Amino acid sequence: MKALVKEKAAPGLVLKEVPEPTIRDDEVLIKVRRAGVCGTDVHIYDWDAWASGRVKPPIVVGHEFAGEVVRVGSLVTDVRVGDRVTAEGHIVDGRCLLCRTGNSHVCPHTQIIGVDRDGCFAEFIAMPATNVWHLADNISFDIGGIHDPMGNAFHTVLTADIPGATVLVTGCGPIGIFAVGICKAAGASRVIASDVNDTRLALARRMGADDIVHPNEAEAVVKRQTDGLGVDVVLEMSGVPAAVHQAFALVRVGGRVQMLGIPSKPIDIDFATEIIFKGLTIYGVVGRRMYDTWLAMTRFLGSGQFDPAPVITHKFPLEESDEAIRVIKSGEAGKVIFEIA
Amino acid sequence: MKALVKEKAAPGLVLKEVPEPTIRDDEVLIKVRRAGVCGTDVHIYDWDAWASGRVKPPIVVGHEFAGEVVRVGSLVTDVRVGDRVTAEGHIVDGRCLLCRTGNSHVCPHTQIIGVDRDGCFAEFIAMPATNVWHLADNISFDIGGIHDPMGNAFHTVLTADIPGATVLVTGCGPIGIFAVGICKAAGASRVIASDVNDTRLALARRMGADDIVHPNEAEAVVKRQTDGLGVDVVLEMSGVPAAVHQAFALVRVGGRVQMLGIPSKPIDIDFATEIIFKGLTIYGVVGRRMYDTWLAMTRFLGSGQFDPAPVITHKFPLEESDEAIRVIKSGEAGKVIFEIA
Amino acid sequence: MKALVKEKAAPGLVLKEVPEPTIRDDEVLIKVRRAGVCGTDVHIYDWDAWASGRVKPPIVVGHEFAGEVVRVGSLVTDVRVGDRVTAEGHIVDGRCLLCRTGNSHVCPHTQIIGVDRDGCFAEFIAMPATNVWHLADNISFDIGGIHDPMGNAFHTVLTADIPGATVLVTGCGPIGIFAVGICKAAGASRVIASDVNDTRLALARRMGADDIVHPNEAEAVVKRQTDGLGVDVVLEMSGVPAAVHQAFALVRVGGRVQMLGIPSKPIDIDFATEIIFKGLTIYGVVGRRMYDTWLAMTRFLGSGQFDPAPVITHKFPLEESDEAIRVIKSGEAGKVIFEIA
Amino acid sequence: MKALVKEKAAPGLVLKEVPEPTIRDDEVLIKVRRAGVCGTDVHIYDWDAWASGRVKPPIVVGHEFAGEVVRVGSLVTDVRVGDRVTAEGHIVDGRCLLCRTGNSHVCPHTQIIGVDRDGCFAEFIAMPATNVWHLADNISFDIGGIHDPMGNAFHTVLTADIPGATVLVTGCGPIGIFAVGICKAAGASRVIASDVNDTRLALARRMGADDIVHPNEAEAVVKRQTDGLGVDVVLEMSGVPAAVHQAFALVRVGGRVQMLGIPSKPIDIDFATEIIFKGLTIYGVVGRRMYDTWLAMTRFLGSGQFDPAPVITHKFPLEESDEAIRVIKSGEAGKVIFEIA
Repeated sequence: MKALVKEKAAPGLVLKEVPEPTIRDDEVLIKVRRAGVCGTDVHIYDWDAWASGRVKPPIVVGHEFAGEVVRVGSLVTDVRVGDRVTAEGHIVDGRCLLCRTGNSHVCPHTQIIGVDRDGCFAEFIAMPATNVWHLADNISFDIGGIHDPMGNAFHTVLTADIPGATVLVTGCGPIGIFAVGICKAAGASRVIASDVNDTRLALARRMGADDIVHPNEAEAVVKRQTDGLGVDVVLEMSGVPAAVHQAFALVRVGGRVQMLGIPSKPIDIDFATEIIFKGLTIYGVVGRRMYDTWLAMTRFLGSGQFDPAPVITHKFPLEESDEAIRVIKSGEAGKVIFEIA
Repeated sequence: MKALVKEKAAPGLVLKEVPEPTIRDDEVLIKVRRAGVCGTDVHIYDWDAWASGRVKPPIVVGHEFAGEVVRVGSLVTDVRVGDRVTAEGHIVDGRCLLCRTGNSHVCPHTQIIGVDRDGCFAEFIAMPATNVWHLADNISFDIGGIHDPMGNAFHTVLTADIPGATVLVTGCGPIGIFAVGICKAAGASRVIASDVNDTRLALARRMGADDIVHPNEAEAVVKRQTDGLGVDVVLEMSGVPAAVHQAFALVRVGGRVQMLGIPSKPIDIDFATEIIFKGLTIYGVVGRRMYDTWLAMTRFLGSGQFDPAPVITHKFPLEESDEAIRVIKSGEAGKVIFEIA
Repeated sequence: MKALVKEKAAPGLVLKEVPEPTIRDDEVLIKVRRAGVCGTDVHIYDWDAWASGRVKPPIVVGHEFAGEVVRVGSLVTDVRVGDRVTAEGHIVDGRCLLCRTGNSHVCPHTQIIGVDRDGCFAEFIAMPATNVWHLADNISFDIGGIHDPMGNAFHTVLTADIPGATVLVTGCGPIGIFAVGICKAAGASRVIASDVNDTRLALARRMGADDIVHPNEAEAVVKRQTDGLGVDVVLEMSGVPAAVHQAFALVRVGGRVQMLGIPSKPIDIDFATEIIFKGLTIYGVVGRRMYDTWLAMTRFLGSGQFDPAPVITHKFPLEESDEAIRVIKSGEAGKVIFEIA
Repeated sequence: MKALVKEKAAPGLVLKEVPEPTIRDDEVLIKVRRAGVCGTDVHIYDWDAWASGRVKPPIVVGHEFAGEVVRVGSLVTDVRVGDRVTAEGHIVDGRCLLCRTGNSHVCPHTQIIGVDRDGCFAEFIAMPATNVWHLADNISFDIGGIHDPMGNAFHTVLTADIPGATVLVTGCGPIGIFAVGICKAAGASRVIASDVNDTRLALARRMGADDIVHPNEAEAVVKRQTDGLGVDVVLEMSGVPAAVHQAFALVRVGGRVQMLGIPSKPIDIDFATEIIFKGLTIYGVVGRRMYDTWLAMTRFLGSGQFDPAPVITHKFPLEESDEAIRVIKSGEAGKVIFEIA
């Protein structure tokens, strides 16, 4: 089959023929129809410090996808050939104390598809049946193909107390933009979206942001919209040091900061004034709650209360992966996906 | 001043002149502009068993209102003459362990205006400054006058986990109808409203109910809309025995039933099959959380994400109280309010 | 192998030779060393209305046990021959939305060993590997054999907010007595245990109850020990109608009632005064949270902060099952277990 | 009256005669019997950067105390002359949205006694009646005098989920040592206490620490006692940068870090690896929850399940304040208190 492969420890990806995956008795084989391209894929493409320390070439890249089941292992009971599915990309052991107590999202034995084992930028992928999530008939493969990053956004939003809340979203990459729309659909009273990039801010507006601001305007707008109090919740989606400081500065005392953006290096934090004296709660967001996040996401999509379609701005065939990566880097894109079949 | 008074231990209310209330140093005097009429007022009007056991005539009736502050006591620091306000009608001691730990709504020393001391169906009412809640400029007195019952609805809805939830509301009196709209505004994925009365169901639909059903259709619709699982949350707003049983029957295993409707007599409950084996959580709703509920309500109204205006179907002067009571009893009304000045 | 069997639809149990269970690839075979006898087993022995409606003879009875693993299926990765184990007796599908979102304890497809499929009053039992829970070296088989009912008690206690709480336990059968000790170990400030049976009250005292009372003394003692307020939490462990009413009466306003005791028939409840006006939360306890309850139980036992040993008052071989059942019915016993090998 | 006063903007405190405080109608006058000395007092004594930026001399210092009520204002209803009391030292406005929604501990208008207005190192102190907390007869003035710092410890401990938890306490000053004992009383399964000071570690052991370790041993002990997983909860009570990093390193994935120790300057944090990828929750502890913390503290002390007496190692008259400060700085003390009358 055709697959986009990180062949060796160097920048770039190669589209090439590789053997179709075999499946174990508890796995299913899925014909990939759509696959989302993530910042993580860009890191792997660029072969940066993180990628070179984690990824072992050769490996098929990609971890966000949807498709059709074409083969099921003999032990699989609830997935059938022809099912339209997506999947949780974190393959966990399912047996450790964390997995057995509702914390699979931080299972220490997690293997991520496209990072630790072959991924989904290919015509087929093998997945454990336990990771498969069915798509309702009214959910397109396009939307199915971005369940993974939407799930991050749902996890970030729904582990805060949103109905009636004022929310600042710092960073309007695809996950931040999803989060804006989810906050509105979950009953936030006001959502302020901040980014340096006007294209992204326009998408945030389209997803329902009440205010879109550049970072240098955020403080004034937050103060004005919250009577000087600060927002109840900040969703930090950028990983940018200035935004992290702003998150702590603009959340109200006793408020909550959800951190999903990954700072690339250490940040100097004044815990006394930024966190402790304000009585803040801070939550580090990893992956998606298995499978509470997925159920909530399915509910929001099924009801139509949240529609991520406007966030998908570009579609490419696997053959144009260089262009897909370029578009993401350019900042002109929302979510970029591959159309595979 | 003019006031609607329960003069003696018998049915009916009398509009008469009574002395204007005096205020203590920690109280304010409010000129009442609008006052909501509640089922409780109907009980007092009818002088039923509950009313005759609780209310001590003579007393000015009414506990839902909004108006303008016309006098403030010498110790009052944060309310000023001219302020547009409503108020929490439960006057609590503020000093017991329940009040000091966030449970004022169940303070054992609660006095309710219009029930235990003079109420708001009058030109003026004296209120402790601590009970006053300011109205934003864009909130009308009409809406201000129904904050008390809306607050019950917000308390009922927001103490459940609503974003993404499927919800059944049994009973579409005014509080039930408010609850429908609040559920939608708070991110419920599907709200099914049940009542015997088509006028009320039409209001529930107007407030956003996805399905409106008669009680005998509720089971089929719940099953169909939840893939047979049952709803995540039931809001029991009727107090009708059949609806209480239906609440336990149609909530999913592990689900939550919020009970606000007051059954008039005991109900035979099979705890084993209706509650325990299903692993349910049941919550009895009293009043409004002070003042978390009020803050949330203010946020929902201020943002426009919830607009209760359609629920107000009738307005009367105090002089037409008999007609107001009649309309409520007829079942043809949503929320009925008095226009006082 | 030797097993205690409900042979036909009539009272009694028969000890007889039956074939040793075979195991599937994802199961393990466990040599049973100890097995607890539960009220459920008494119902099956007596062949009462519940038993005759649920149990399909012939079946090996018993659902509480500990033992040694003697065989493991080919797909089992984390259980080994020789492991000392107990097991969750609720066999769930693991794939429904409830199981996938942390609510396996109410999985609608639950099969209970000894009720819906062959149980543990036998020399061997086959169990899915996912249900197996390892015993630490310092946990005896006696204690291992009663993890199931202790787990019910842990579930009941730990889903309330116990540190610093005042607690009333109504009903001091084995699970109630366990709950007394768990409450104390979890930081309850005062535990009042109520029962009609002085032997059971003596055990409750032994497990740390601050006050032991007959039901007719409960109100006076609760009032005295809580300054008239009522207890923060009631654990209703009896299923007796008078105790259920007492639970609602003696919990404080805004308090919590955990219901585990199974009333045998409907109870007339005045929701208005018993539940709603008090602002109560009620929780129906089913089984054990999988596997949060099990982890907590392991922690409490491993640290020695909770020691259930005094609750085990009688041990019998399988041959003396009639006597075991008689002792339980007599009310003279705490926990009764079978020593099997 | 006699009072310990920060007279001018320079190091040191002066014992001198000052006028007895007058009280407002809603205040009470308390004859101080015991007063605890806090690290904050040391900062004020030393006149460090924080103190000189916040404190406005002349001011009576001290914020932890207990005593007897000797006068009550005309509006005070629930405090009487002769009452044995302590008090919350944070004087809040009681009217802002934070105060009205259960977040008084972070009220932006907080005035702290002994910091922002006259404190308790004096024969008498005036306090708002709302801040007064009654002492039960069996609670000594010694213990009453340290409710403020114990309250910080209770707040820190009880906002985590402690029953059955493994806990690491980094920093065994008085609040850390209190926290050790509270954790044990609240059902922690294992408490590991870390400090550089053996005197403090001995006190931590006396309060129930299962393991006492120097910081360089903490990692090994945590790993051994938690099967390599890390502790469920870290209470960071030191403010030392190395301890903060250790807190994030030794808490398990998905765990919780409660931060009370105040770092004196910014710390370089690698959010990616220290917080986000671990899925941590971090909570900044300010003061005491009003008055949930106080009620819980009263319950723990009243039942005897927690006894802080061993932590009080030194008592001085006000005349020996220099020695009191010296002892605290020396590290040889647990809790130091003034005996005033």
